[in-house]
Amino acid sequence: MTTNAADQALRERAMKVVPGGMYGHEATTLLPASYPQFFERGEGAYIWDVDGNRYLDFMCAYGPNLLGYNNGQVNDVAVAQLAKGDTLTGPSAHFVDLAEALVGMVSHADWAMFCKNGTDATTMAMTTARAQTGKRRILVAEGAYHGAAPWCTPMPAGIVPEERAFISKYQYNDVASLEATVAEAGDDLAAIFASPFKHDAFIDQALPDPAYAKRARELCDETGAMLIVDDVRAGFRLIRDCSWELVGVRPDMSCWGKSFANGHPISALLGNDRCREGASHIYVTGSFWFAAVPMAAGVETLRILRESDYLENSVRLGTMWREGLDALAAKHGFALRQTGPVQMPQILFDNDPDYRTGFAWGEAMLKRGVYVHPWHNMFFCAVMTEADIQFALAAADDAFASVRAQIGSIEPHPVVLMFLTAMAGTH
Amino acid sequence: MTTNAADQALRERAMKVVPGGMYGHEATTLLPASYPQFFERGEGAYIWDVDGNRYLDFMCAYGPNLLGYNNGQVNDVAVAQLAKGDTLTGPSAHFVDLAEALVGMVSHADWAMFCKNGTDATTMAMTTARAQTGKRRILVAEGAYHGAAPWCTPMPAGIVPEERAFISKYQYNDVASLEATVAEAGDDLAAIFASPFKHDAFIDQALPDPAYAKRARELCDETGAMLIVDDVRAGFRLIRDCSWELVGVRPDMSCWGKSFANGHPISALLGNDRCREGASHIYVTGSFWFAAVPMAAGVETLRILRESDYLENSVRLGTMWREGLDALAAKHGFALRQTGPVQMPQILFDNDPDYRTGFAWGEAMLKRGVYVHPWHNMFFCAVMTEADIQFALAAADDAFASVRAQIGSIEPHPVVLMFLTAMAGTH
Repeated sequence: MTTNAADQALRERAMKVVPGGMYGHEATTLLPASYPQFFERGEGAYIWDVDGNRYLDFMCAYGPNLLGYNNGQVNDVAVAQLAKGDTLTGPSAHFVDLAEALVGMVSHADWAMFCKNGTDATTMAMTTARAQTGKRRILVAEGAYHGAAPWCTPMPAGIVPEERAFISKYQYNDVASLEATVAEAGDDLAAIFASPFKHDAFIDQALPDPAYAKRARELCDETGAMLIVDDVRAGFRLIRDCSWELVGVRPDMSCWGKSFANGHPISALLGNDRCREGASHIYVTGSFWFAAVPMAAGVETLRILRESDYLENSVRLGTMWREGLDALAAKHGFALRQTGPVQMPQILFDNDPDYRTGFAWGEAMLKRGVYVHPWHNMFFCAVMTEADIQFALAAADDAFASVRAQIGSIEPHPVVLMFLTAMAGTH
Repeated sequence: MTTNAADQALRERAMKVVPGGMYGHEATTLLPASYPQFFERGEGAYIWDVDGNRYLDFMCAYGPNLLGYNNGQVNDVAVAQLAKGDTLTGPSAHFVDLAEALVGMVSHADWAMFCKNGTDATTMAMTTARAQTGKRRILVAEGAYHGAAPWCTPMPAGIVPEERAFISKYQYNDVASLEATVAEAGDDLAAIFASPFKHDAFIDQALPDPAYAKRARELCDETGAMLIVDDVRAGFRLIRDCSWELVGVRPDMSCWGKSFANGHPISALLGNDRCREGASHIYVTGSFWFAAVPMAAGVETLRILRESDYLENSVRLGTMWREGLDALAAKHGFALRQTGPVQMPQILFDNDPDYRTGFAWGEAMLKRGVYVHPWHNMFFCAVMTEADIQFALAAADDAFASVRAQIGSIEPHPVVLMFLTAMAGTH
């Protein structure tokens, strides 16, 4: 018997001491009403909410869980390091070990700088590009998420336009749009940002067109600007290298975070020698940026990534999930749009502009012990098994049937409607 | 026999894979040449560098070490929580526990939001103030450090002036300067930032003049602007509340970090109901902001702060250290300027404009097993003892004698000279 009494009690307490009750990407504001806000624990591929309900977790903490929650090898290293020291009056040797490990794995990289948030890494990339080139204009793809600082947060309440001066938008995968935006920048182009693939929320994902990626590289070479791949979300989920190695393009900088210490808090900016000088001049720091525990955990995580078949396993199971879901959807008379790499799937329903069908299916899956997201890309982790996918497919079969039975009487989520209206107003 | 062979080897490796070899506030670029860059471990009040040299650590990791390194009570909680889960697909109940604990301890606060860097908290305060008031102008004291984002980093390489639009400077503790800067803002004032005391690097510290603090409060009340105390560095080291309770002034927001989870990575913005609405509208988030381990560690740290005499112990030992040092300095013919709260001491030498005497004394202290900083405020932690201070005073007696013997032949640090020249050029 599913209950959410503990979750509700925590929500009521949170409403008093947290503005709006919760904030940021883990708030359930834009999720179906039955989705839990608070969790008790995670183990392997599963999470338990505070009411003891277990879910196979296709969100993986929105990315950080790459090897499985509570990975013993990584956490043993972390606990041992914690007893020696975490944040000290200077960095530990693991700082150098981790920088060498990343530079060794990521082909374009000659150097590394560590920080805490993905946003730290993208902001440092922007500032480094300006310091290196002496130019100001930064190009980002329309709709791409590069963090939640004033220059990039997707919902700009409290942001003044000046904080986004010299930020221009182009269309991802559109060479003509990229060229036109570069031309508009004239001789003031500092950098072009690109996501490794188009993984914007609410819409179909798109893999990078090699022609677009190569043209971005050429335009940076022609103008002296820096090419930056924001691999915070997809890093090491597509390849054991920068994701754009898959299209044969090497950026000058790449941004990393979320998963390379399997959930221990650390992010990184990697760069080549073309912008080493600029990177050495910017002043960035943080209270916990030099902490030893996440760096030790990162060294161990990267070793496992190099030595295990985590990636191949995710691709195999992701394919099984995608193909199985397509067959089940068809059986129940639904058409899905499954996009993005199979190991980072986006699952949207066709003819579902206000997401009501997707939300209903999500709730039906949740009830059956599978946590899927109705509008954000999902993630596979290394410890998922065929049995897990079979469990999820059985749940999906039931869930599709349940939604089919309700169809016609499903109401859209009121907050989603407000959000979609607001988003439409900004374009 | 002191050696630094391991440190030197790591520096050489770091120079290849980190721009400039190191960056940020823990880089030794502006410290005496013998100061180690890399550390092996910390225990209680002591740190060991990678060559095995032990130091009584008056930096406390630049603040995060409040209860002593590797505090068993806090770390037992952290390790137990790590096995249950850290970064999951949603926050844990500790999120609410910690928000309630902080709101319970900090008089002005009605709500809390958690983040990772001190800079996250100050940037969220700025954005919340703008979202709440609909106004743009932000006042900060000249020379105050509020983080390393584009709007506030003290060394603005790679920053465009537009990123600092609507940031105005006033003179700390100067009512006339504050009033004039508020007047210049006209009807566009969003917030006044204040450090709890003037703890700028390189100069004497200054406690807040109550007249200045009260006037800042009045000006915010008159204009509808938000008063923000940046307690990231000093939080819980002066009082078990917001630091400006000591001068009877309650801000609308306060920024916290570094120490409230005893070094586990978390920071926070606290606010009152005057700006709850604005805080609920900004979009801020981070990959690890909802992680359970630092929140569990924070709840335990706050419990210890409430139930122990950590603060009174630090004041008692800080007074012993300050008075003892003054006597020893006089004995050796030096005059010190010891400023700031005794538990967050700044120690500068009189007649030492290029810091050469302070640097020489720092090196002499380091050689004798005491890590002091020649231009940044220092920190006491709860587990320091009278025996530790006696050890440090004995070292200081020797160190003063050693510097006295060298006086006249000490050269200034070349990077400090470059830095001071550059700083002079910006004023």
